Amino acid sequence: MHSWVDGLPVDGLSSLKDRGLAYGDGLFETIAVKAGHPLLLELHLQRLALGCSRLAIAADHVLIRSELLAYAQQMGDGILKLILTRGDSQRGYGASPGAQPRRILQASPSASYPQANARDGVVLFDCATRLSEQPLLAGLKHLNRLEQVLARSEWQDPAYAEGLMRDTSGRVIEGVFSNLFLVQDGRLLTPDLQRSGVAGVMRAALLAQAARLAIPCHITDISLEQLQQADELFVCNSVYGVWPVRAFADLSWPVGPLTRKLQGIARTLLDV
Amino acid sequence: MHSWVDGLPVDGLSSLKDRGLAYGDGLFETIAVKAGHPLLLELHLQRLALGCSRLAIAADHVLIRSELLAYAQQMGDGILKLILTRGDSQRGYGASPGAQPRRILQASPSASYPQANARDGVVLFDCATRLSEQPLLAGLKHLNRLEQVLARSEWQDPAYAEGLMRDTSGRVIEGVFSNLFLVQDGRLLTPDLQRSGVAGVMRAALLAQAARLAIPCHITDISLEQLQQADELFVCNSVYGVWPVRAFADLSWPVGPLTRKLQGIARTLLDV
Repeated sequence: MHSWVDGLPVDGLSSLKDRGLAYGDGLFETIAVKAGHPLLLELHLQRLALGCSRLAIAADHVLIRSELLAYAQQMGDGILKLILTRGDSQRGYGASPGAQPRRILQASPSASYPQANARDGVVLFDCATRLSEQPLLAGLKHLNRLEQVLARSEWQDPAYAEGLMRDTSGRVIEGVFSNLFLVQDGRLLTPDLQRSGVAGVMRAALLAQAARLAIPCHITDISLEQLQQADELFVCNSVYGVWPVRAFADLSWPVGPLTRKLQGIARTLLDV
Repeated sequence: MHSWVDGLPVDGLSSLKDRGLAYGDGLFETIAVKAGHPLLLELHLQRLALGCSRLAIAADHVLIRSELLAYAQQMGDGILKLILTRGDSQRGYGASPGAQPRRILQASPSASYPQANARDGVVLFDCATRLSEQPLLAGLKHLNRLEQVLARSEWQDPAYAEGLMRDTSGRVIEGVFSNLFLVQDGRLLTPDLQRSGVAGVMRAALLAQAARLAIPCHITDISLEQLQQADELFVCNSVYGVWPVRAFADLSWPVGPLTRKLQGIARTLLDV
């Protein structure tokens, strides 16, 4: 399926003056689409709006929503990627006052991960690449993603389905393309993303569902030592849902009941 | 003048699958061109090669050099921007094994800064945006530049020609688009860029020239308090050369003799 740029089908090309290319000056969302419906759309749009607010990108959110719905309708099933940039500008970091944000929609086939990831759990690679601490950008799904590119390049062995990333102070933050949850004494813990990391849409959905089910949740700083004490561990994102984590470095965990419960919830959220 | 993508003139368009757009997965150089000659070319190419090595981008540096020379020849005078990305890939942070790095060359008119900047010195804005600390990326001119975009958006008042950026630990690092030098007791000091910052080509050129002239130089961590004790302060880059700094916050400096000396050297380097 053709990509759309600003609502029009294009042949895979965009402007060379785009600040997304020049500086990574923009945001993106990766949205699972089933039977023509973009899943978890409201949460994706909320995060996008937060990013636009923090980066001062004056996007038309009504238009973005209607384009996402129309594009997903044509896709049927797959992964919809939205890239929203600040638009074109002349040379230099300062944005042109008249810059029009650019909307790029791209379709990919549905992700095909091994079924064993969800069933038996995954092993996490121990990434040496650390996440830098930048409160102004933390949580956002912005286009400055060299740390994830470097981290993902650290392993090729398919025995590792994901990699665990810490920040430069050593806190456990997230997977390269997932968020992380711990279960301890019947309680959910997930890393605080005020300094680094991407606040994933599935993370937000699971936190909301857990609150609805009165499962205690705690967003906090998490150390490597705390991983050791966890009863269960899992990673999540808005494409694959929940994968139990069965091992990381010399640690291992069983696939526990709370992980299975939240995996079931994620599955429901990714169904139409 | 048309931009070139991979050596061919194009009508301002590049691939939507480019990892430069998707993740800021690439590098750039901004090169002054005079009478058809790209200035400080060897230093630009050295920094680019270091970036390619650190990011594992397998670029053809012989081809890049010859393209820069040919493009500059056609430009005559102006600013040549090279963007080198890892090339296209499918969705996901992992690069496709067959990805071909993409070369983008763009021409802009020569920068037109007020003559007073070089003559009388500039006032620096005090940027609230801090540089995050990421040793894996520090020094490189990579495409992840949201911190500079945010910092540059902090002021519109043309009374400030540049902004001063500190890192998240409070160290003085650089300008938004310049490097910084202090003069103290006849000695040059410039911030260490092992954790953050862009190691500018003019900075490298001035350090080399100072060494040749036996002017003592020290690359070190610099605090705000040390600015106060400096006899002279200046900023530099490979487009405008050297601007004395006459004020920042409640501090001020005279335009001193070592600044004028290095300004003269920079002017020579940017002449053909």
